[in-house]
Amino acid sequence: MSFKVTILGSGAALPTAQKNPTSQYIECQNRHILIDCGEGSQMQMRKFGVKLQKISHILISHLHGDHYFGLVGLLSTMHLLGRDKGIHIYGPKELEQIIRLQLEIAGNKIGFSLEFHHIKKNQTGLLFEDKCIEIHTFPLKHKIQTNGFLIKEKEKELTLDSERFYSDKLSIQFIQYFKKGQNVTDENGSTYFYKDYTFKAMPTKSYAFCSDTAYNENIITSIKNSDVLYHEATFTEKELDRAKVTLHSTAKQAATIALKANVGKLLMGHLSARFKNDKQHLIEAKKVFENSFVVDDGDEFII
Amino acid sequence: MSFKVTILGSGAALPTAQKNPTSQYIECQNRHILIDCGEGSQMQMRKFGVKLQKISHILISHLHGDHYFGLVGLLSTMHLLGRDKGIHIYGPKELEQIIRLQLEIAGNKIGFSLEFHHIKKNQTGLLFEDKCIEIHTFPLKHKIQTNGFLIKEKEKELTLDSERFYSDKLSIQFIQYFKKGQNVTDENGSTYFYKDYTFKAMPTKSYAFCSDTAYNENIITSIKNSDVLYHEATFTEKELDRAKVTLHSTAKQAATIALKANVGKLLMGHLSARFKNDKQHLIEAKKVFENSFVVDDGDEFII
Repeated sequence: MSFKVTILGSGAALPTAQKNPTSQYIECQNRHILIDCGEGSQMQMRKFGVKLQKISHILISHLHGDHYFGLVGLLSTMHLLGRDKGIHIYGPKELEQIIRLQLEIAGNKIGFSLEFHHIKKNQTGLLFEDKCIEIHTFPLKHKIQTNGFLIKEKEKELTLDSERFYSDKLSIQFIQYFKKGQNVTDENGSTYFYKDYTFKAMPTKSYAFCSDTAYNENIITSIKNSDVLYHEATFTEKELDRAKVTLHSTAKQAATIALKANVGKLLMGHLSARFKNDKQHLIEAKKVFENSFVVDDGDEFII
Repeated sequence: MSFKVTILGSGAALPTAQKNPTSQYIECQNRHILIDCGEGSQMQMRKFGVKLQKISHILISHLHGDHYFGLVGLLSTMHLLGRDKGIHIYGPKELEQIIRLQLEIAGNKIGFSLEFHHIKKNQTGLLFEDKCIEIHTFPLKHKIQTNGFLIKEKEKELTLDSERFYSDKLSIQFIQYFKKGQNVTDENGSTYFYKDYTFKAMPTKSYAFCSDTAYNENIITSIKNSDVLYHEATFTEKELDRAKVTLHSTAKQAATIALKANVGKLLMGHLSARFKNDKQHLIEAKKVFENSFVVDDGDEFII
């Protein structure tokens, strides 16, 4: 379970009794990432057993309130719970101004560093990487600057053929070399070939997050072949005009992007509060892209 | 039921699964007032059946996040639901800066006017009045500027003695005069005395709100003889030192204020999340002031 998405909030701008505004918690290779943080996200974390102090990176897609009004409260709670480990926050530059202003006026010096990374309007490419994961960004098409995100695993080490390795009674020191695809020559001059002791590496997985956005084929290159794509689907085809005016997408449009980007699975969210259920969204999406789902608060997806 | 308090959030700085941060909804003589608005208050309103569009006045005691982080989300929701009626917001002057900055960056022009009324640090006296109610403020003693509030009914009209009035078959036009304590002389020169057709007016009620504050006898003159006093009680006597350092109160201190101010009933809230229950708070408060209660989210109190 090394790559998992937990939906903390699946709703649109108007929170309902069932759906909190947008927020998702991503565990990827033991990294803990929060994407968006609508009001009440910290309560949702408590409800769904998410350990908020583990979060090291927060990605904010844009500065409409339903995507970040819960951030300052989350940071305050992290402080009150004694956090001292810094946190990295990625978003439009005004986010830093808003958060720092509120913390300053409260008169509390936060006990950990807030490392803000300003994302520019049309920024495309790598935001962060370490030895296990990469986070990329790309522009979406919305009323204000909005950025999508792609979280992907880096190439993994080869998988050890344990049965053969242990039956040949080799030194366990060899494992690290074999996993990296390196042969080993021992003190007697005997060479052991990594190919004899490994299977191919587990495939690398990726998760793309697109919210909020009008239909926009420009994003396809950035999210191509993702294992899972989250794409907003505020409306159904009946409200296509409204989708165009508000720069949101319909379920069919989300599915069309999923199809053209050749992703493995489509998760739809941010359905307008006007819809009593998700039936019509699923009907319209599945006609275009069968592996479509509508997310609910508390849902978990293994990538 | 003309004066009612609904507890939307009863907790302290750290929200728990049971207790949201501070917020209270007051209905008084058909006026609808919100006091404080911690994160998630709009969701609590939905949960407890409070009609958020009815709110005309919002009072924010201070700018620690657990007392106002939910305000910008509430205002956004009011806008999305089509509100056009202006709203009056009372609080420290920086509140306006914070709210306007966030709304401006979101790029949405709010469809109703936000009338901010800046409360000064040591301001004491009338904030608002109309023909039925008055709202007063007074300073509390906390780490940053914090203001308490007193909501009181104005003198009410006399109560009509319906039985006598209708049996004497007088013109119903007379009622408005009698209720105001005025005698009426009819076209024949007969005078009818209001005292013969009325009982005395219903008593005027008042509700005082004190959060957050260290023990502070200076507030007593402002809240004297209130029917109900809400006073924070973050700690028990065991944490008296901690209460002093953090400028919060113990249950015993809250009860002492209630006793000295001669109020009718004491409601305590803002208990630190460290307490698993409210037993010790009640024991310590009741020793000083018997009519003491600890509030929970969703509680309603008729004043």
